[in-house]
Amino acid sequence: MADGATTTAGGAVATGHGELPAGAGAFEGTHELRTSIATVCLAGTLDEKLRAVAAAGFDAVEVFEPDLLASPEGPAALRRRVEDLGLAVSLFQPFRDLDDVDPAAVARSAHRLHRKCELALELGTDLVLVCSAVHDGAVRDDALLAAQLHAAAEVAASHGVRLAYEALAWGAHVSDYRHAARVVAAADHPALGNCLDSFHVLSRGDDPSGIADIAPGKVFFYQIADAPRLPMDVLPLSRHHRCFPGQGEFDLERFHAAVVAGGYRGPVSLEVFNDLFRQAEPAVTAVDAMRSLRHLRDRTFRQRPGLPPASPAPSLPRAPAVRSWAFTEVSASPATAGAVTGLLSRLGFSRTGVHRSGPVELWSNGDVRVVLNRRREDVRAQVTALGLATPQPHALHERARTLLAPVVNRAVGPGEAEIPSVVAPDGTWVQFCADEPADGGWLADFAPCAPAAVPAPRGEQPVVLTGVDHVALPQRFAGFDGAALFFTAVLGLQAGPAGAVPGPAGLVRTRTMTSPGGALRVVLSVAPTSAMLRGRPLGAGHLAFGTDDALAAARAFRRAGGEPLPVPGNYYADLEARFGLDEEFLEQLRENSVLYDRDAGGELLHFFTRSVSREFFVEVLQRVGAYGGTGEANTPVRLAAQAAPPTA
Amino acid sequence: MADGATTTAGGAVATGHGELPAGAGAFEGTHELRTSIATVCLAGTLDEKLRAVAAAGFDAVEVFEPDLLASPEGPAALRRRVEDLGLAVSLFQPFRDLDDVDPAAVARSAHRLHRKCELALELGTDLVLVCSAVHDGAVRDDALLAAQLHAAAEVAASHGVRLAYEALAWGAHVSDYRHAARVVAAADHPALGNCLDSFHVLSRGDDPSGIADIAPGKVFFYQIADAPRLPMDVLPLSRHHRCFPGQGEFDLERFHAAVVAGGYRGPVSLEVFNDLFRQAEPAVTAVDAMRSLRHLRDRTFRQRPGLPPASPAPSLPRAPAVRSWAFTEVSASPATAGAVTGLLSRLGFSRTGVHRSGPVELWSNGDVRVVLNRRREDVRAQVTALGLATPQPHALHERARTLLAPVVNRAVGPGEAEIPSVVAPDGTWVQFCADEPADGGWLADFAPCAPAAVPAPRGEQPVVLTGVDHVALPQRFAGFDGAALFFTAVLGLQAGPAGAVPGPAGLVRTRTMTSPGGALRVVLSVAPTSAMLRGRPLGAGHLAFGTDDALAAARAFRRAGGEPLPVPGNYYADLEARFGLDEEFLEQLRENSVLYDRDAGGELLHFFTRSVSREFFVEVLQRVGAYGGTGEANTPVRLAAQAAPPTA
Repeated sequence: MADGATTTAGGAVATGHGELPAGAGAFEGTHELRTSIATVCLAGTLDEKLRAVAAAGFDAVEVFEPDLLASPEGPAALRRRVEDLGLAVSLFQPFRDLDDVDPAAVARSAHRLHRKCELALELGTDLVLVCSAVHDGAVRDDALLAAQLHAAAEVAASHGVRLAYEALAWGAHVSDYRHAARVVAAADHPALGNCLDSFHVLSRGDDPSGIADIAPGKVFFYQIADAPRLPMDVLPLSRHHRCFPGQGEFDLERFHAAVVAGGYRGPVSLEVFNDLFRQAEPAVTAVDAMRSLRHLRDRTFRQRPGLPPASPAPSLPRAPAVRSWAFTEVSASPATAGAVTGLLSRLGFSRTGVHRSGPVELWSNGDVRVVLNRRREDVRAQVTALGLATPQPHALHERARTLLAPVVNRAVGPGEAEIPSVVAPDGTWVQFCADEPADGGWLADFAPCAPAAVPAPRGEQPVVLTGVDHVALPQRFAGFDGAALFFTAVLGLQAGPAGAVPGPAGLVRTRTMTSPGGALRVVLSVAPTSAMLRGRPLGAGHLAFGTDDALAAARAFRRAGGEPLPVPGNYYADLEARFGLDEEFLEQLRENSVLYDRDAGGELLHFFTRSVSREFFVEVLQRVGAYGGTGEANTPVRLAAQAAPPTA
Repeated sequence: MADGATTTAGGAVATGHGELPAGAGAFEGTHELRTSIATVCLAGTLDEKLRAVAAAGFDAVEVFEPDLLASPEGPAALRRRVEDLGLAVSLFQPFRDLDDVDPAAVARSAHRLHRKCELALELGTDLVLVCSAVHDGAVRDDALLAAQLHAAAEVAASHGVRLAYEALAWGAHVSDYRHAARVVAAADHPALGNCLDSFHVLSRGDDPSGIADIAPGKVFFYQIADAPRLPMDVLPLSRHHRCFPGQGEFDLERFHAAVVAGGYRGPVSLEVFNDLFRQAEPAVTAVDAMRSLRHLRDRTFRQRPGLPPASPAPSLPRAPAVRSWAFTEVSASPATAGAVTGLLSRLGFSRTGVHRSGPVELWSNGDVRVVLNRRREDVRAQVTALGLATPQPHALHERARTLLAPVVNRAVGPGEAEIPSVVAPDGTWVQFCADEPADGGWLADFAPCAPAAVPAPRGEQPVVLTGVDHVALPQRFAGFDGAALFFTAVLGLQAGPAGAVPGPAGLVRTRTMTSPGGALRVVLSVAPTSAMLRGRPLGAGHLAFGTDDALAAARAFRRAGGEPLPVPGNYYADLEARFGLDEEFLEQLRENSVLYDRDAGGELLHFFTRSVSREFFVEVLQRVGAYGGTGEANTPVRLAAQAAPPTA
């Protein structure tokens, strides 16, 4: 639990690029590719981008021309800056619409090419990208195109520069990498080769197996990007929605394996145009980028045994199973701690331990454990740590470190258990607990104590809970894709589809992350932007406990003085119209403010408590059969009830 | 100028729904349609939505079922609430996937329909919407579909309810309104008619002329929405990007005329699903909505003389020509006023008048006039009013009032000119000035004065300006479409294409609004969201003055001690590579930090001053020939230079 060092921004926690674990070992091996990233992936000035790229451990940077043009430093100074940061320039990307049916335009292109080759060399690279043309004047004859590319390669070669020709998915004549490779082969010039970009291949649904047919040595450069499958044209998808490997839906393991198997040994370079990444902190985005490459490499080499034998073995520790939730931690300020303990008491929890080193309490309902952290002055009440029970906490921690998760360097008191911990993108601590420790593990840090003085349930049966069903964590603006990647790569969770739920303040984006066995569910959400701008609740943060009888739990909660979130009568009338529920059952749901849903696998019954703070409430839910979701159909009703002014 | 009542939120200005001009007159006439809006268009709780709809002057509201389900008030109470607000419920919209190939599902649908008909009546409407089915079980046989719709109409009729059947553009079997009308005709039941929705017709590129073929009386309901033409599927376009008439690219005048000409006399109901409107203040969105309908009606009845003779004449005063900028007003706090006057002085302005009633100064460079307002404590330095010279200021003001522009009720001092004024969505005042007033007009309010003590240009030729080329106004989050509608409807400007310009903090959205003759250009922009969340500059607010010689102006500005925004050397190297400019000309540009662009019509030379505040700087630009833009190609270089830390 986050009881020793309670802020994630303080000196006790490695949050930034200055303290990344040395990751070089992850990329040793004869066939591993150097890492590169295009400056267009990041926000900031060119100098800020370069610093972020170097700090995240990249080998090289691909310079996007608009970043260069806007930079106050000239190319020679930039080259020195890049080298001082331990980077190289992998590619310069200044060219659009080189070929043209108009000879005068071809002459202008040649002039431009001379200048850009000089510029590339000044920047310290001999490689210039040329995209297939998209303009009206594009050459539509392969022989003429090959001749023009040959002439361009002559220009480049006169400077000692090489050209990498790339098929844009929306190219006017060349839009397929196999077509591009044929034209490059026909042009037959040693200074002309191919650039492969996973986006332009996979967004068209093309098969990467044709990469094997490209002549050895003729792939000059390799760009990589992922993307979601959105119902839009490929051009806006490319310009606004690309993402890092593992954040989208492309089969990049197959693509990556095809490029490596084809003998390519240059850098793999991330080229991601994303409206949100353009706005995010560049240091954070660059770490996400490197995490995505390390994770991709691991998946590729584990899943593709057909790769050449020289491929190195994976160097990431495999993600060990997470057996269950050891605990969840809620932090509360002095002003809200009473409300939190009152709520826990009414939910059948009682205080069973006090931490040996400070104002941290253990609250238990059977085997369901909540750590109440009363040290934090900076939060009202919210979930601040997730304790995961796993047979190999140190292996999971090592995996997280290798994947650049910021490590918690927590002060451990004498005799206290050490809990290896990292920090998730939203600041929540993720703590790896031995699930059957010989010495009692983290639990032994709590001394048994007298029950807290809370309203007793007056002899009634208390709420019976079976575990943590899921934890809902609100994310920062522009932090959604990074959080999904973190939980996927570090913990091996699987990301469900991204959804958008309407609430009174706008659409709330949500995504459920689930462990393969289903033991862990984390629901990520992002509040509507206007709500963030007004400084209003980020909302959605809560703990959802499982039960075998939601109606009984709701009754016990109410008898203990608990107040469920009210549910409108209109909602129950609609349940009847939709599902034809019988009147008696419906009446029980209504009386107890229990909501209902049904899917192909089963049924869901659940209720919500009123919020303790804008960041914390509790849900209790019962799955009947194999109900698969988390009650998303009822979220709009919850959001509206939470937004309503409290009745007197 | 905004010199008497300097805040837009104060009591002196009618900003809200409480003080809208009585607009009923705009909709008199035998053939005018009542106005309605779907609750889904607006943010907030159902109660907040209803109040906003009533305040904006709508006749009716279309209740979207999720809003009802989430409402704590039952249907009878809601009906009373609606009636107390002077509204009616025009339609209830609870139905998806009514028809089904599975008889058991048909039985369940019938049960649901009984319930929803009862609910509709409780809400106070006898009209229920039924969309064409989109599910896998949808009926794909017209005869069977007609039979199922007939049976459903029997159910509805047994309650005294009517069904309006609508073709969704992505319907599984019925996606075309003509197809829907054929099925409705075949079903042949008096309780079954058509619902026409402009989105579902025009998003498919369908021709609305087929509306004339629908039997008289068989159009039961009419929904309207606009949309931009985006390169995406029609379903996400519908769910996320619909907008109000005039904000998108559909030919709604033609559609509206076709519906009215077909004899429909029910309400016209806005149904707009828009991610940003869902987050905006409902009162603001509802006024935008009503403005869009009044403007649409005006355009339709002016442009479509083929309408039946009974159609009423337009009741909106026609937008009179705006001849030129009378003035632009900049407000400055005591801390920044010196910087503003210094900048104006170096740009060749001198103080030529002082307002009779307060600390407001007139600064002139020839006929170019800037009003410097020193009353405002709440701004650092920004553009706060636009003075427009027009032959008919009162007609323009009346038009603005009828289009629900908040009116400035400004205190006018004895002998002062009255300047009819309204407030634009971003808070900027728009002031209508007589362009050749017999009594001197607004200018007579300024008493001549001694020149201000500013650095003299030491005998050099000062900057010569020819006018205001454009004014750039940064908009609020979610305020972009509303601002475009305001300038289109109220001032008759034409909206250029929406653009997105990359800067170090993300993409900046921009749109240029131009008057038909080109006398007025207003550039709207929206800063990246992250920048707003960090409380960083909204940026982009500036005045752009025209000149006949930008190089001479830049030299004069520098000789007077002015400091242009620095432009990187890399930028000029690229100009040479792209345009082959001769070295001497290029050197003059570089020396003076003047930027260059070229389009099919001509050339642009321009420079920027350093920013006085995060909200104010000045641009000076020279158009050579018929250059059409505002130098958008150079905006990324400007944004990067503005973001760079100042050099020592």
